[in-house]
Amino acid sequence: MARRFTSPRVAAVRIEDDFWGPRQRQLITRTLDAQYAQLEATGRLAAFELTWQPGDPEPHPFWESDIAKWLEAASNALALEPDNAGLEAKVDRTIALLAGAQQNDGYLNVYFTVVRPGERFTDLRSAHELYGAGHLVEAAVAHHEATGKTTLLDVVRRYVDLIADVFGPGGEHEGGYCGHEEIELALVRLARLTSERRYLDLARAFVDARGTDPYYFLTEQRRRGTPGYFGGTLTPEDPHFLQHREYNQSHLPVREQTEAVGHAVRAMYLYCALADLSVDSDDPTLMDACERLWEHLTTKRMYVTAGIGSSAHNEGFTRDYHLPNETAYAETCASIGLMMWARRMANITGQARYVEILERALYNGVIAGVSADGTKFFYENPLASDGDVERRDWFECACCPPNLARIEGSLGSYVYGVAEDAISVDLYIGSRASLTVAGREITLSQRVRYPLDGDIRFALEVPGEPVRFTLRLRVPDWARGARVSVNAEVTAAVVRDGYLEVDREWVDGDRVALSLDLAPRVLHANAAVSADAGRVALAHGPFVYCVEGVDHEVAAHALILDPAAEPRVVVGDGERVARLELGGWQERSAGDVLYSEDAPERSAATITAVPYYSWNNRGRSSMAVWIRAAEG
Amino acid sequence: MARRFTSPRVAAVRIEDDFWGPRQRQLITRTLDAQYAQLEATGRLAAFELTWQPGDPEPHPFWESDIAKWLEAASNALALEPDNAGLEAKVDRTIALLAGAQQNDGYLNVYFTVVRPGERFTDLRSAHELYGAGHLVEAAVAHHEATGKTTLLDVVRRYVDLIADVFGPGGEHEGGYCGHEEIELALVRLARLTSERRYLDLARAFVDARGTDPYYFLTEQRRRGTPGYFGGTLTPEDPHFLQHREYNQSHLPVREQTEAVGHAVRAMYLYCALADLSVDSDDPTLMDACERLWEHLTTKRMYVTAGIGSSAHNEGFTRDYHLPNETAYAETCASIGLMMWARRMANITGQARYVEILERALYNGVIAGVSADGTKFFYENPLASDGDVERRDWFECACCPPNLARIEGSLGSYVYGVAEDAISVDLYIGSRASLTVAGREITLSQRVRYPLDGDIRFALEVPGEPVRFTLRLRVPDWARGARVSVNAEVTAAVVRDGYLEVDREWVDGDRVALSLDLAPRVLHANAAVSADAGRVALAHGPFVYCVEGVDHEVAAHALILDPAAEPRVVVGDGERVARLELGGWQERSAGDVLYSEDAPERSAATITAVPYYSWNNRGRSSMAVWIRAAEG
Repeated sequence: MARRFTSPRVAAVRIEDDFWGPRQRQLITRTLDAQYAQLEATGRLAAFELTWQPGDPEPHPFWESDIAKWLEAASNALALEPDNAGLEAKVDRTIALLAGAQQNDGYLNVYFTVVRPGERFTDLRSAHELYGAGHLVEAAVAHHEATGKTTLLDVVRRYVDLIADVFGPGGEHEGGYCGHEEIELALVRLARLTSERRYLDLARAFVDARGTDPYYFLTEQRRRGTPGYFGGTLTPEDPHFLQHREYNQSHLPVREQTEAVGHAVRAMYLYCALADLSVDSDDPTLMDACERLWEHLTTKRMYVTAGIGSSAHNEGFTRDYHLPNETAYAETCASIGLMMWARRMANITGQARYVEILERALYNGVIAGVSADGTKFFYENPLASDGDVERRDWFECACCPPNLARIEGSLGSYVYGVAEDAISVDLYIGSRASLTVAGREITLSQRVRYPLDGDIRFALEVPGEPVRFTLRLRVPDWARGARVSVNAEVTAAVVRDGYLEVDREWVDGDRVALSLDLAPRVLHANAAVSADAGRVALAHGPFVYCVEGVDHEVAAHALILDPAAEPRVVVGDGERVARLELGGWQERSAGDVLYSEDAPERSAATITAVPYYSWNNRGRSSMAVWIRAAEG
Repeated sequence: MARRFTSPRVAAVRIEDDFWGPRQRQLITRTLDAQYAQLEATGRLAAFELTWQPGDPEPHPFWESDIAKWLEAASNALALEPDNAGLEAKVDRTIALLAGAQQNDGYLNVYFTVVRPGERFTDLRSAHELYGAGHLVEAAVAHHEATGKTTLLDVVRRYVDLIADVFGPGGEHEGGYCGHEEIELALVRLARLTSERRYLDLARAFVDARGTDPYYFLTEQRRRGTPGYFGGTLTPEDPHFLQHREYNQSHLPVREQTEAVGHAVRAMYLYCALADLSVDSDDPTLMDACERLWEHLTTKRMYVTAGIGSSAHNEGFTRDYHLPNETAYAETCASIGLMMWARRMANITGQARYVEILERALYNGVIAGVSADGTKFFYENPLASDGDVERRDWFECACCPPNLARIEGSLGSYVYGVAEDAISVDLYIGSRASLTVAGREITLSQRVRYPLDGDIRFALEVPGEPVRFTLRLRVPDWARGARVSVNAEVTAAVVRDGYLEVDREWVDGDRVALSLDLAPRVLHANAAVSADAGRVALAHGPFVYCVEGVDHEVAAHALILDPAAEPRVVVGDGERVARLELGGWQERSAGDVLYSEDAPERSAATITAVPYYSWNNRGRSSMAVWIRAAEG
């Protein structure tokens, strides 16, 4: 049986990296404050005072989730910097507001308390009620882990007890499940924290009921007798009935699902729960489903940036190989969800191929969602633009900004995977980690300039006796070569499941050096992807690159790469990220004619590519990830 | 001063053409019946019995327009074949239904009669009421011209009298105008038929009020006090307020408008009225606006197929050079509207450049809207597809099918333009026309295989004395050469405004032969159009071509043209339309990998292109108008 890995807690891994470190600092010093100000300015916090009257603007039924994700992000920040009294005061005030809005029976959703008080749990399909509950649970777990306090955890456990009564065996809504998955994975986190089996049972009940017959969302609609809050009326005769079911992954029982369909964020959160439950309730059929869904998603429906979701229409998946660039939805939250799922798959299997996608999402689809100054956000992440989009301060539906904040704050927990007798180094991020392996607490430090170069140095602190374990160093599948040395002696390590494995007795002061060859790469899409035909993408390390109009005399779409040109890696003074320069051409039309027998004029040009995540930080500009390549 | 041209009536020009003739026959024998059956099956006709009760499915406030366009199409058919008793019976029955639904005061809209009886003319912005009235007027004019009957005309004039009372000077809603333009051009047609100035005055009042301050759509909203029927509430503080105004071209007074914006069909119908009124009310400022709008539209926002409208979101225009292919809206009705506007511009100016666009719309964007069997329709006309769309029998909003029917039925009226002392041959379509020129009735016959070849023969029948006039033969700007002979003698004719002009005394039996060089063409888009970068389109005569997957081993997007290859014109036995064959390559990926450093495999392929209008007649298939071209 393969080793099972777990992720360390946020506080166990300090990020000490000159790319990620400043980002995390900015998150704590700036983004969290800016987001808290938005929560206040938009009335999201005040809503919890329950003073809403008919005629006032309505609170949104998923405002709990915005606040909960902020609380989770802030808790991660407190885990890293416990003495941040200003932030802790905001967290405590927010928790007090939540506690004050909780009803006597434990219920905690402002909208269904003040706007539609008699309609709790009657529109699971569209009203996001349990989704909000799930995020509250995640926030409570993170808050407790960070601070040791139970203020939020106590509130949340009372709410979960109510939910278990309503949806558990013999409950009023037994057989129900939420249209937006999230509570399932949250309940597993709560079960792991508390070691209480009943939370796991409830998560499993939600997962097992999903997509079965009789169809719950028809049952609740019949019972309710009115159109859904958001979703209108569901009609089996509707030609789009199947799509409506796929939208929230309730088209089939989860174990029969084979294709990634519907709303992309919902899909990711469901798949996370399937992976979790495959372990915690020892059910390999759930892992089988995950492996099929993973294979389908990553070979048919994923952008090269690890963005997912091709269409704004359903915020989700469309058809195999349908990956339009300009109209890509690729919601920031969906790449975050993919990262979350990938981590679970990697921990369960010990296979680096899952981390490959995790890393691609992190360095591209995820962090593209936030501006260089940490205060503006993309919700959708197109892979091409003629300059008509830019990041915004906030959104009416504000899921992405606090989701980014919680993921960047928890970054440390993604760097390593720890098993009984092994440590996997999944991400090459400068850090200092306290990890327990083979029953012993050791400290593993990592020094990198990755992905500027591929030289990665580790130092081990092993107090007392030597300790035997396997150090697994991930070799990205795109690395052209990898060498490892221990204490300056080259070691003939075996690559297994995508990791160079060094199995030995480690002693205090051991030094490991890994050298990865990170030459830039020119990528082609499968010929079935119409949007990328005749185009190439550039990559260097985990970064996918793009061209921006701001670096050129013409718009991004009018640049043509010379296929024979070798990309040059150019690093500016004091810069931690490289740009790529290549030979090519640019095109211009001389006149104002729209269509003619004359081809545009072409002239030589140097093409400059920058990491995709960094686009739109220098004003509005055209952009393209997939760049025209002259035919060889 | 330039000559002014008018279009002959439908009945004056018999189509005798082996491409267009069968299409028109099919329209009369099949499409009109199929559409009438849809009008019945969908309850559109029965609604006029006014038996609707609360709880029944609601009639649509623009069902009048569907019926009226069918009536106009059927009237055109009766003009061509007056002894079609079966069709005439359906027309008479439909008119009787309309007459029966007319209220005592002349009002005629089912929705506002039975569903919202107190709310007439209170939501001009979104309810389409006057739009429906306009189509009724057009139908009545066509019906009267075709049959001499006044059954529909009498009904419609009573309705127009009511509208004039309500919207004319001192009327309850003076200063109002319809959110969906149409009644303006219809009133000009009615004024021309009846020589009644008051219809023209009303059309002009609608046009002059449009876009002025105070803004009528805010005024009516305030008066109404409820959200609009379709449009919701308009708020000046809304960041999209300008777009809401542009949507129906009420962002500026019409004479200040310089860019084609908003809903494309609405824009075309407005521009038609501006052109009409520039003549009939002798107002050159309206023609100035038309010329600016034309220049903008045709050099910045028009597809190569003369489809217009880049986005489904507003069924209309977006940004300059934003012409995405797969997500093109390019509504069939919008190309029809462009054809209608182009004819007016050509008639007013005598310039062939307008006919150029008219012809391009007709042979591409318009007739792509109907299937080879005449019973299935495209509403949207993308220029690329991976095979996920196909024509449909009918639509909930069914504007396009009867619009296609009325335009194909009236095709004869587009072939010639007639001035006092000149005849323009605008379209090369086999036909026999009775035209009045220089005060004399002559017959002009045209024999063509255009665009299969460029040999076009005319025969004149001039009873009695010779008659002097200028015969103007349009030379398409893409023709590589043109020669004309009269009675087999080559004539050194002058090209003026895009026409070869032959000015002489014509006698009975004169023969004119025109020879146009129609070699296939390879077109490039302006380099500013990102969607077409690195691609070319093929054209032959007025047809724009496309590649379909059904003709190839790979999908359309995976074909690559050899830029050095000369297109070969291939005509199958008995076929009236050519396909083009060229050398090139096709691409395939060997494995299932989505992104890799290996380029797809490329092999030589013969590329077959077919006229765009004919796509999707052989089952679902991928398609592309803009084809990848290997870089030279």
